[in-house]
Amino acid sequence: MVSRVIFGRGSFNQINDVLAPKRLNSKAPFIFLIDDVFKNNSWLTSRIQLSYDDRIIFISSKEEPKTEQVDELAEEIILTSKERPSGIIGIGGGTLLDLAKAVSIMITNDGEAKDYQGWDLVKNPAIFHVGIPTISGTGAEVSRTTVLTGPSKKLGINSDYTPFDQVILDSELTKDVPKNQWFYTGMDCFIHCIESLTGTYLNTFSESYGNMALDLCKQVFLEDHLSMEEAQEKLMMASWHGGMSIVYSQVGIAHAMSYGLSYVLGTKHGIGNCIVFNHLEEFYPDGVKLFKQMKEKHCIALPEGICSDLSDRELNTMLHIALGLEPLWENALGKNWKKIMTPEKLKALYLKM
Amino acid sequence: MVSRVIFGRGSFNQINDVLAPKRLNSKAPFIFLIDDVFKNNSWLTSRIQLSYDDRIIFISSKEEPKTEQVDELAEEIILTSKERPSGIIGIGGGTLLDLAKAVSIMITNDGEAKDYQGWDLVKNPAIFHVGIPTISGTGAEVSRTTVLTGPSKKLGINSDYTPFDQVILDSELTKDVPKNQWFYTGMDCFIHCIESLTGTYLNTFSESYGNMALDLCKQVFLEDHLSMEEAQEKLMMASWHGGMSIVYSQVGIAHAMSYGLSYVLGTKHGIGNCIVFNHLEEFYPDGVKLFKQMKEKHCIALPEGICSDLSDRELNTMLHIALGLEPLWENALGKNWKKIMTPEKLKALYLKM
Repeated sequence: MVSRVIFGRGSFNQINDVLAPKRLNSKAPFIFLIDDVFKNNSWLTSRIQLSYDDRIIFISSKEEPKTEQVDELAEEIILTSKERPSGIIGIGGGTLLDLAKAVSIMITNDGEAKDYQGWDLVKNPAIFHVGIPTISGTGAEVSRTTVLTGPSKKLGINSDYTPFDQVILDSELTKDVPKNQWFYTGMDCFIHCIESLTGTYLNTFSESYGNMALDLCKQVFLEDHLSMEEAQEKLMMASWHGGMSIVYSQVGIAHAMSYGLSYVLGTKHGIGNCIVFNHLEEFYPDGVKLFKQMKEKHCIALPEGICSDLSDRELNTMLHIALGLEPLWENALGKNWKKIMTPEKLKALYLKM
Repeated sequence: MVSRVIFGRGSFNQINDVLAPKRLNSKAPFIFLIDDVFKNNSWLTSRIQLSYDDRIIFISSKEEPKTEQVDELAEEIILTSKERPSGIIGIGGGTLLDLAKAVSIMITNDGEAKDYQGWDLVKNPAIFHVGIPTISGTGAEVSRTTVLTGPSKKLGINSDYTPFDQVILDSELTKDVPKNQWFYTGMDCFIHCIESLTGTYLNTFSESYGNMALDLCKQVFLEDHLSMEEAQEKLMMASWHGGMSIVYSQVGIAHAMSYGLSYVLGTKHGIGNCIVFNHLEEFYPDGVKLFKQMKEKHCIALPEGICSDLSDRELNTMLHIALGLEPLWENALGKNWKKIMTPEKLKALYLKM
């Protein structure tokens, strides 16, 4: 779990005070990985005091994070720093947060990021790493995974060394998120809750977090009484609690299928989840009903027919990636999930989307 | 915040696996501080594998933990261990958990425990420490404080080094708690929620945790549909979330007054909170109403007139201790709390109890 959290509107102003005591020496820089939508945004960047060899690397989040990208970043940081950095600070959405977590691991672990995709394969503690979300929903700020697309699979580096040492939750940083993106990413959280709460892995720990996050999502996406600031704060907490819920249980069908879409088509995680979940009435009837209400209330139109032009080979790869995520299917459908979700059935589902 | 948590019925069985990788060497023992109600209870103790110089120290929780007791324990542990211990494991209620946290701090920090009562006074990281609650409600398993009675005050050691590195939440360990104790300690959690949720320090982070804990408390203490196991699990989670709620806000009048009772009369924290809260309708009308319903439903009789025989001097000490806890009063009554809660008014309140 995350060791330290600061919460509050404007708390990003504390960033320099948080980092100062963690500086190892003047040759060990802090490296800021920041979503490039904040390039030239002095409202955010002017508050970061760069000292000595500290530097900012702006990164596009247009594509899902890749293992090679992590390897390149880690190598570049190692080669251009006089000493091992004092810390990595990720500022952005799930992509930037996952990159920051993965890079902080690859600075202290040999080999390539793809070698660590899986559960508890990381050998050495990561360097100090800080997560500062600028959009709410993914739960990447609290999770013990960092989801990466590798050469042969899309899978997280799940380990006790993955979670951030420090998180700053400042809802003001989410104020300029475009509406569609706000919805897709918020739905990532909503879908986490539904998948966790209806899953066979559920326990009282995850249930209490999932219920809390679900209630906050309903307030944010279905009710009208919140101010903009309240809605931003509540969605930030929903993301946090939704993330906690799945740390101790598991996600389900929407995530498994969305990983398949992402691997073959490069579909971003948030919208991919929405496209998939919209067609999962059979498995999550109540959740999908609520989802459709939310989608309608916020006038969100989802792409359709995205799998209709795929070749057989592409479709088979998609099935292979999705069905490979066994814990997700087992959580959703129980130990005999293979009898329920055959490749044929999954293929038919994809072709509806 | 706590870095690692294991949750689940029977998860105490994992204790040896959790500790093994944390052993520094064969001369650095694990020290188990265990509530002496578990002495001769092989159901619990037989599951702990003692190796090398590991040892169990049984401690009575009849009295609230004291700074001197912490100093004596830390000294004894240092003197009787060949090397600095690998870790301290606290197994019990709030008293044992607070002792474990404080001792783990005093093994690496000079001076006496009383020197660190306050906020952020601890200089060096504590040694590895594990908390395993055997009763639910105090939130000590998750908090960044360890509440101690010192020579001049009852106040916590609040620091970033206080929280446990590892917590095991196994509700089965709470199965033999006597009913009165179950109620008093559960009410500690309920009162945390009310004090946090109605306080001026409230923020969305604390609010979401407080609401979740409050909802779980209502299920456990007012509803009839839970099995014994479910009720134990839910109360364990309520304690956790209630503790999280106050980590990022503050407690209030019941805790301030209960500290006064404890300092002068030695009243245990759980029952002290109940005695006080029962008379706080003026400040927490809805909370006290719910409390009385719960008390009635579970046929709990509280002592009365406990302050009626106190000398003026004792009463003044009580007022001094309670009113010294400024953040608690400010949270409850706002910045101008001194105009509302005068010493006369507080004295009248104590005399009603």
